[in-house]
Amino acid sequence: MVLAILLASAMGCEGPKTIDVSTTSHLFSDTEDYTKWVNPMIGTAKMGHTYPGATVPYGMVQLTPQTHFEPIVDASGSYNPATYPYCAGYQYDDSTILGFVHTAFSGTGHSDLGDLLVMPTVGRPDLDSNDKGGPRFGSSFKHSQERATPGRYRVRLDRHAIDVDLTATTRTGAHRYTFTEGGAAHIALDLTYNIYHHPDKNVWTFVRVENDSTVVGYRQTSGWGRTRLVHFAMRFDHAIADYGYEKGQELAYNGFYRRFDEERGFPEMAGRDLRAWFDFGTFEAEETLEIRVGLSGVSTAGALANLQAESVSKSFEQLQREAHDVWNDALSTVHIESVELKDDTTFYTSLYHSMLSPVVYEDVNGQYRGLDQNIHTSEGFTNYTVFSLWDTYRALHPWINLTQPDRASDMVSSMLAHADESVHGMLPIWSHHANENWCMIGYHAVSVLADALVTKVPNFSLERALDAAIRTAEVPYFDGLSSYIDHGYFPDDLSHSSVSKTLELAYDDWCIAQLAAAAGDVSMQKVFEERANGYQRVWDKTSGYMRPRLSDGSFRAEFDPLDTHGQGFIEGNAWNYGLYVPHAIDSLIAWHGGNAAFIAHLDSLFTMRLDDVYFAHTEDISRDGIIGNYVHGNEPGHHIAYLYNYAGAPEKTQARVRMICESMYGPDVNGLCGNDDAGQMSAWFLFSSLGFYPVAPGSGWYDLGAPLVRSAVIKVGDQILQIETEGAMDGALVERILWNGEVIQGLRIHADQLLQGGTLRFEFKG
Amino acid sequence: MVLAILLASAMGCEGPKTIDVSTTSHLFSDTEDYTKWVNPMIGTAKMGHTYPGATVPYGMVQLTPQTHFEPIVDASGSYNPATYPYCAGYQYDDSTILGFVHTAFSGTGHSDLGDLLVMPTVGRPDLDSNDKGGPRFGSSFKHSQERATPGRYRVRLDRHAIDVDLTATTRTGAHRYTFTEGGAAHIALDLTYNIYHHPDKNVWTFVRVENDSTVVGYRQTSGWGRTRLVHFAMRFDHAIADYGYEKGQELAYNGFYRRFDEERGFPEMAGRDLRAWFDFGTFEAEETLEIRVGLSGVSTAGALANLQAESVSKSFEQLQREAHDVWNDALSTVHIESVELKDDTTFYTSLYHSMLSPVVYEDVNGQYRGLDQNIHTSEGFTNYTVFSLWDTYRALHPWINLTQPDRASDMVSSMLAHADESVHGMLPIWSHHANENWCMIGYHAVSVLADALVTKVPNFSLERALDAAIRTAEVPYFDGLSSYIDHGYFPDDLSHSSVSKTLELAYDDWCIAQLAAAAGDVSMQKVFEERANGYQRVWDKTSGYMRPRLSDGSFRAEFDPLDTHGQGFIEGNAWNYGLYVPHAIDSLIAWHGGNAAFIAHLDSLFTMRLDDVYFAHTEDISRDGIIGNYVHGNEPGHHIAYLYNYAGAPEKTQARVRMICESMYGPDVNGLCGNDDAGQMSAWFLFSSLGFYPVAPGSGWYDLGAPLVRSAVIKVGDQILQIETEGAMDGALVERILWNGEVIQGLRIHADQLLQGGTLRFEFKG
Repeated sequence: MVLAILLASAMGCEGPKTIDVSTTSHLFSDTEDYTKWVNPMIGTAKMGHTYPGATVPYGMVQLTPQTHFEPIVDASGSYNPATYPYCAGYQYDDSTILGFVHTAFSGTGHSDLGDLLVMPTVGRPDLDSNDKGGPRFGSSFKHSQERATPGRYRVRLDRHAIDVDLTATTRTGAHRYTFTEGGAAHIALDLTYNIYHHPDKNVWTFVRVENDSTVVGYRQTSGWGRTRLVHFAMRFDHAIADYGYEKGQELAYNGFYRRFDEERGFPEMAGRDLRAWFDFGTFEAEETLEIRVGLSGVSTAGALANLQAESVSKSFEQLQREAHDVWNDALSTVHIESVELKDDTTFYTSLYHSMLSPVVYEDVNGQYRGLDQNIHTSEGFTNYTVFSLWDTYRALHPWINLTQPDRASDMVSSMLAHADESVHGMLPIWSHHANENWCMIGYHAVSVLADALVTKVPNFSLERALDAAIRTAEVPYFDGLSSYIDHGYFPDDLSHSSVSKTLELAYDDWCIAQLAAAAGDVSMQKVFEERANGYQRVWDKTSGYMRPRLSDGSFRAEFDPLDTHGQGFIEGNAWNYGLYVPHAIDSLIAWHGGNAAFIAHLDSLFTMRLDDVYFAHTEDISRDGIIGNYVHGNEPGHHIAYLYNYAGAPEKTQARVRMICESMYGPDVNGLCGNDDAGQMSAWFLFSSLGFYPVAPGSGWYDLGAPLVRSAVIKVGDQILQIETEGAMDGALVERILWNGEVIQGLRIHADQLLQGGTLRFEFKG
Repeated sequence: MVLAILLASAMGCEGPKTIDVSTTSHLFSDTEDYTKWVNPMIGTAKMGHTYPGATVPYGMVQLTPQTHFEPIVDASGSYNPATYPYCAGYQYDDSTILGFVHTAFSGTGHSDLGDLLVMPTVGRPDLDSNDKGGPRFGSSFKHSQERATPGRYRVRLDRHAIDVDLTATTRTGAHRYTFTEGGAAHIALDLTYNIYHHPDKNVWTFVRVENDSTVVGYRQTSGWGRTRLVHFAMRFDHAIADYGYEKGQELAYNGFYRRFDEERGFPEMAGRDLRAWFDFGTFEAEETLEIRVGLSGVSTAGALANLQAESVSKSFEQLQREAHDVWNDALSTVHIESVELKDDTTFYTSLYHSMLSPVVYEDVNGQYRGLDQNIHTSEGFTNYTVFSLWDTYRALHPWINLTQPDRASDMVSSMLAHADESVHGMLPIWSHHANENWCMIGYHAVSVLADALVTKVPNFSLERALDAAIRTAEVPYFDGLSSYIDHGYFPDDLSHSSVSKTLELAYDDWCIAQLAAAAGDVSMQKVFEERANGYQRVWDKTSGYMRPRLSDGSFRAEFDPLDTHGQGFIEGNAWNYGLYVPHAIDSLIAWHGGNAAFIAHLDSLFTMRLDDVYFAHTEDISRDGIIGNYVHGNEPGHHIAYLYNYAGAPEKTQARVRMICESMYGPDVNGLCGNDDAGQMSAWFLFSSLGFYPVAPGSGWYDLGAPLVRSAVIKVGDQILQIETEGAMDGALVERILWNGEVIQGLRIHADQLLQGGTLRFEFKG
């Protein structure tokens, strides 16, 4: 019914096209439950790095189990935290849950967060560290007694027969622990526990027991985020009968000299590494303990206000229902009719994973901690954090820009605020929780801005965006940028990852040129168009590869185009990363010798058999995500399957995209072939399974592939975009593609078209 | 002229009393310079613990030289910072200045602060630590080339021939460094340096180079203040040519992996222990570098706003002139005519020292960091910190309450805000910079409140004050309070310092009873009147001393009334501390056997010869401050000289007070016989040298002694209080005392009288 109205308004101006109501009758209705197609366990095995816990779309709180604490101290005494596999703190193969934290990244390639580990126990939890420095109070569990759905996570903890039920709002988490056998109900609150376990990571921890049911505090860490603060406010539904804490690294508090028993019943605790315990007395069998936790980057007062606003007046059931409903509403952005049921799970779980970052990062009153560590108030926008931009500029942000323009607007404003707060004047590179962690290369926020411009994201200030983009591109000390500006490429003798950086900055600079052109700033447009030619300067026509070039202008002699180490590329090689020229694909094809040679090169890429040695010690590339020498489990090649289109072989784009959709994604815990990378992998699937993909975000163009879904209805702002197919889809070869009934000439469609709403129809051969 | 008007209005209602204009003609005039009588060097030798640096009355910034860094690592490996002698970081006997910090306590008995050490050097300062962990960039100096005046401090640093000139506003410090021989002008900014040097004290340090002349940042420490943050903003009058830093304890910052040269020219620095250097290029001979530094407990934005508001628009000369003028204005609260010139110096330096704490602790916009670590805004008051209440309730706060009612009002409001922000609901014990350090015994804020009530401090909310006082007095876990409530005294087997605490809490509880009585809360009045009898329960009539009592009701067998250790007293013994019953002196006299016996007891106190062993290992009592067994260098006996009055021997009060004034205070660097204790020692002198003293603050009564000054005119709020003398003062025996021409019956005068203004006339014998 709602659909009918939406469609009527969307379609009315375009023509009399009608939708096949028989397959979409429950679209957007109150009764359709899209959450049933989401399996948050997907990607929790191997290198997906997703988490199964409770959260809401783009929520600040991620309330999720932690399964591991096993840092390795090597022979030399070096401390090696299990940083990489435990980016989200959970691995499906583990059998012990240590507790439940309130923050986690989804699918990243490096780790941080894991704040405020809470664990219920019967009897006083043992707060001493084990020989690895981790907590001793973990419990075994079984996946057969674990259930994750959007906004809810349940598990049984075997050790003390406690049933756990978790849910979340944007800024709060809610725990319900059922002590099935009763007993002495305790909670461990571990402020020492961290994702990326390192003994020096904790900077300060602070806890105040405000009254018999309210506890506030914060912890400050220095990890991937160098100066990071998270404040909390907890409310229990039972009175605290007794409490106390243990410290890790001891710090004398002179004030306590002779004055108090600091470690028990003293309501203000502080130190570098606190673990606290709370005793709630003896429970009957099946008695439940509920905890609500508000977070804030600003202050404990902010956390308390968030808790008050979002959580305390509602029952646990109501919170769960609302978390479910907000997810269902968010997932209803797209309705698909799939060919195979498993694809529904893959699709909606991808859609789910695409909504786990960036996350809201402000209190209910609009205050947030800025990159300058000062407290700011968002004026006219909602502030977001967790910008994993080297990953997400490729497809995740284009997806959000296209389908959720208001949220995209907030994200753009957040990035511009970041630039204002940055001492460098720079847009985010990879930022989280009021910190810049500088991860990876390039300054791809400019791509998000350019794409926001062409997708007409509301409240977009072209002037501010262009200014921030130019400032970012002119910071001489940023990762060798001055040498790039001087030489027109990154000289390999002066800068790491010289070719990767030259290629990616060439594209980024092209994005800035698009912004300048739109702003009518011809002089800046020329500057950045010229910089955007940088890719030409690392093309070695002798070898036929993008190749490291030295500051004297010569190409480096030692060069192995397959090796992923020390060849001027980061997490890739000349074969695959060398294809990254999204804004000048025709040049690339010409250099390779024209369409046929380029197609042959691409075919080789997908079919060659590479020795494992080429990908050894490359954390972000695992065999699971590789097809030949094509690496789907990592981002730099995400556009490659679409390059066939440019060489006149759209059927190969269609086949490769279909193959990737079917082999690299799936509906089980192994369903991600590499890190989801804050939603980028999932967003690739969303676009590609719907039949289009933004090879060069900022251009406005989406390259057409072959949809995996039979049909789809997508909310695009206030409009409706329909995907239709006709014919057998198993061969995946498309005969023709129509936009609103007219055959599309060429193999792409522009944002201007999609934003008007309409129907994109793929007619398959045979 | 101003005086005439003030006197006319003050005197008009009281009668035709005229003032001897010949001795006071320049009183309060624009031309009198009271600052010339102030020598900030007084107390910088031995145990005075004052600092010579630049500050303004009750200012947040104390810009002062540091002369020492010599922690001792003993045989067991224990780290023993030179905590006690360097409470303010400066000792007159030292010959090296390490740099200039922006915060310091004045005269305390324990140490903290010492924030943001700045040192000018020619050539790059060596930022490595010396073998004691301290800085290597110190310079020798000579007192002959050092000059301290109110609001200004000058010194020549020999090492690089740099002349230093410092001044301050409430929230900012200003440095002017003259490189007399020119050269490569550098600044060391040492965020590692601390008063109370301990390798673990620094929690986090953070610096941002905002532009070529502005640097902001903060540091977080855990020392006496367990969770303390100080933010700063610095502005240089020369462009920074280059800069960098060194870290102490290394903390990996993953973000910098391959990205930047973090240690040089990178504008955001952070770590546990930073020392930064700034290079300003080559200076001509006599070229000056000026630095302005704003502080804030709230944020770097707050520090910048403070800097902007108070400092940057003014020349260095103007700032110095204003600092001088604000001091002169503050010092003009009292005009004295002294008998000996040296007494002017002692008096006005005491007045100066009485205005160094508490200090303003809020930004220009009224925001301040509260005890709960949240940011609050003062509504209707100015927030203060540094409440050394065990010391200062005795005379400093009564002095401020009487002479500066508006400021006293702010201090009361600050204490009540503290109680609201306290998780214990408690008034401050000893608080500084949003921390409670719990130092010493009792909860003497209640005395300040009771005294504020009787001195009619404006905007005094009796309801809030009584509520906070009662809450404070009922916290069961506070320093054994529950055992005091249970037994009516602190059982010595359950609590340290049992007799001292019983005596002091008895007085404190009497203060609460006064508040309750005024509020008409009869029930609470009775409760606290009963608690105020606690002193009776530790009186052992057998021995004739206050004596440790056990929980079974018996007095402790082992007992030495002269020993200052382990006898139930803290920093005192039964002989001297046992006289602390300010609210029930008549009982004390009766128990001692009446006036004659009591007088004999007092005489013995002042004349007995005690072995050194009795005061060994008692940091706060040094031989300098002792007369017999009377300890003036520490607080618990400050009222004792006035007790003779109660036993009918006022001439002995007069003689003892005169003797203490003359022997325990003086006009040179040794002029304080013990810690000034945040102004308490100085305030004792102010009252006593003017002829009156509040033995029991909160009673409204001031006990009359013998003035040291020939005459005085004191601003008491909007009124004028005159002190007059007649006759030879050298014998110090007073024949009669008149109030507004009428002979005073008894030996005390009430606040109600003083607050009306008038003339207190002492007629000396002979």
